Amino acid sequence: MTNSSEKIILHDNVTVGDAGRLRFAGVDTAALAKKYGTPLYLVDADRIRCRIALYQTEMKAAFGGQSRPVYAGKAFCVKAIYRIMAECGASVDLVSPGELFTAKEAGFPLERAFFHGNNKTDADIALALDSGVGCFVCDSREELIALDRLAGERGIRQTILLRVTPGIDPHTFAAVTTGKVDSKFGSPIATGAALDLTKLALQLPHIELVGFHCHIGSQIFDVSPFADAADVMLRFIASVRDETGFVASVLNLGGGFGVRYTESDPAFDYAAAIRSLADAVRRDASANGLPMPTVLMEPGRSIVADAGMTLYTVGTVKEIPGFRTYVSVDGGMPDNPRYALYRSVYTVVNATHADRAPDRAVTVAGRCCESGDLVAEGARVATPERGDLLAVLVTGAYNYSMASNYNRIPRPPVVFLSNGKDELVVRRESYEDLVRNDL
Amino acid sequence: MTNSSEKIILHDNVTVGDAGRLRFAGVDTAALAKKYGTPLYLVDADRIRCRIALYQTEMKAAFGGQSRPVYAGKAFCVKAIYRIMAECGASVDLVSPGELFTAKEAGFPLERAFFHGNNKTDADIALALDSGVGCFVCDSREELIALDRLAGERGIRQTILLRVTPGIDPHTFAAVTTGKVDSKFGSPIATGAALDLTKLALQLPHIELVGFHCHIGSQIFDVSPFADAADVMLRFIASVRDETGFVASVLNLGGGFGVRYTESDPAFDYAAAIRSLADAVRRDASANGLPMPTVLMEPGRSIVADAGMTLYTVGTVKEIPGFRTYVSVDGGMPDNPRYALYRSVYTVVNATHADRAPDRAVTVAGRCCESGDLVAEGARVATPERGDLLAVLVTGAYNYSMASNYNRIPRPPVVFLSNGKDELVVRRESYEDLVRNDL
Repeated sequence: MTNSSEKIILHDNVTVGDAGRLRFAGVDTAALAKKYGTPLYLVDADRIRCRIALYQTEMKAAFGGQSRPVYAGKAFCVKAIYRIMAECGASVDLVSPGELFTAKEAGFPLERAFFHGNNKTDADIALALDSGVGCFVCDSREELIALDRLAGERGIRQTILLRVTPGIDPHTFAAVTTGKVDSKFGSPIATGAALDLTKLALQLPHIELVGFHCHIGSQIFDVSPFADAADVMLRFIASVRDETGFVASVLNLGGGFGVRYTESDPAFDYAAAIRSLADAVRRDASANGLPMPTVLMEPGRSIVADAGMTLYTVGTVKEIPGFRTYVSVDGGMPDNPRYALYRSVYTVVNATHADRAPDRAVTVAGRCCESGDLVAEGARVATPERGDLLAVLVTGAYNYSMASNYNRIPRPPVVFLSNGKDELVVRRESYEDLVRNDL
Repeated sequence: MTNSSEKIILHDNVTVGDAGRLRFAGVDTAALAKKYGTPLYLVDADRIRCRIALYQTEMKAAFGGQSRPVYAGKAFCVKAIYRIMAECGASVDLVSPGELFTAKEAGFPLERAFFHGNNKTDADIALALDSGVGCFVCDSREELIALDRLAGERGIRQTILLRVTPGIDPHTFAAVTTGKVDSKFGSPIATGAALDLTKLALQLPHIELVGFHCHIGSQIFDVSPFADAADVMLRFIASVRDETGFVASVLNLGGGFGVRYTESDPAFDYAAAIRSLADAVRRDASANGLPMPTVLMEPGRSIVADAGMTLYTVGTVKEIPGFRTYVSVDGGMPDNPRYALYRSVYTVVNATHADRAPDRAVTVAGRCCESGDLVAEGARVATPERGDLLAVLVTGAYNYSMASNYNRIPRPPVVFLSNGKDELVVRRESYEDLVRNDL
């Protein structure tokens, strides 16, 4: 729905429309702000459909067989996104009973779900078994034993992957470091713990081990750490075969492809990366005398991040001579804690005057009583004034999902945009919601 | 209700009881975990009552007149705490319409409330005026103008304080730095902006300026930065008098007294600090030819922090030889984001075996699918195993209030302890609550 003659800002779903107002997914942001109020989460649902289809098509072509993406719902978890994943025939990963409940309520077929978590309680395991979750991604000895017992009580033999740590640190680009052996997730290959748990899993009568899972990190713009991880994993699969006779048929390489948050991030070619990774996996499988496995990947951020935008209204503009200009908006850390947590950098646009060149470096501050409640520092925008709309781009991942009610601020609504139409999918929290459980 | 012969851990409301089990506020933690499940927030309500009474008594004695504490609800904001503040005759500060709503629902008399915020919207201002909030703490030119207009429409003359920044950086202990001039809050004295806004406030017909507010920081264990701030504020009050004839009668020095999170933090003597600060204020007032003002302080953390404890159940214990031992619990970053945000250090106790000496340094990890989901690193505890209760001490401030539903994890319940009895004051969130606003 984007008019192709419109000027694009960072991503092609962000454009400059009538009277210089920002458009998102072809829809006028001022009209959306008027209709729903601010702060407001916007989601380009068509972008999500395209991105999941891209992973599906490219992974099937490159890896073959049943290879496919598994959407990592922790990035953005609402009922509406599971409806999209159900429509698209996608698989999903669930990391908690709350995510499981959300997917179930949305009618998502749970046989296509993978159940993650470094610390599943007995109650979580029972819920997932009783809900017919297709595959567990098991993380520890305690979990294997609990799962075997609870599956046995139900007369089930539960399909699982075992999560292991290959010892890859993607951010040093070292082929194999031991840094990532130090993780709360999975069992290290390097120490022998992964092989021990594999043997345990193979012995337990109510568990059907079909393969292995690893996850090396996130925001990675280079295929080589993934290829390194695949190399380690296939050598591990071969050593398991040599030791036990078990040949894993599934290799889950986790998530982690990068997302373009700002002009200084590269535009990542997901299709090319998938093809390149498939070449590496095929070569490694062959070198180890193994059949090509079914390859799974778990994109979350790269499915939803650039499908999201947050709209705020500017309240105060405070210039402190010799220091900086604070632009305070009607949201902040409660709806986007990523700056406070990770110093994440975002692209900010004056949505009321998107046609004007950015002429001012500002600090975008939230409305919380906390100095650290900032959304961006040194953001270059067209000078804003009270009442202007400010758009923060690429907020689809880990914004709504990490939102809090800090300072008793209600969470914003979520509006999906598709084919030029808007649809409310999560209502704005009310003040009554905040005290619903208070006695 | 604490048996005086019991061994104390960090604070005198944390003791070792029968069979080595941890007691909090005289109540067996194992019994509470059994009754309410884990994770669980516990709050020693008697401790809160004592602490607010200490501030009330000491401030009245030391500063005189109507000087008093104003509880900063952002530290912990539920209906039940406003009922305590109402009973104690305390004042409170509110930083958002959501906090205002919570206080109102609890029946707190809002004429005793101070309404804060660096970015109050017109709707917020209208709500506070219509709710009869006693005093606004105004932050900006935009707010003064909006408040004057909205108060005028209602035929009200609204009492206010004006928030200014004295240019004190408590963490360098420099008498006057310009660092804290760089703040999203208030107006700097140093640049002349504070005086300009004072003159504006004095001219606006529907605003009754009665004094000034400042806040220099938090977790401060030394009186001198507060005395420095008081010195700057009283010189500012004198310069306002000289320039305009207006003599401020109220001086709000904000919050910031330190809290003992671990054995390495000092045990802070709040009463002595208040007396010492009062001496400084009296001296500065006299030196500037000013009457002693009504002094307000805004303790939040120091009222509620050591009144709180979080109980978890241990799920997995993962030893990674050569690295460390991860103890995963059934909560984490969603109920306590302070380690992820600030690397805050907590005292952790194996509540099932509180009589055993800490013999192991462990990393306490949460259950989220995120490497950064840690509660503590290098915490010394008696070696835990699956099923043990783990207590994290001093979690009364900024834990429940900053909690999220990240990974779709429901927020834990809050149980108040008083006089040896337990009372549920916030129910555990249900899975249904998580999707209540989903369409």
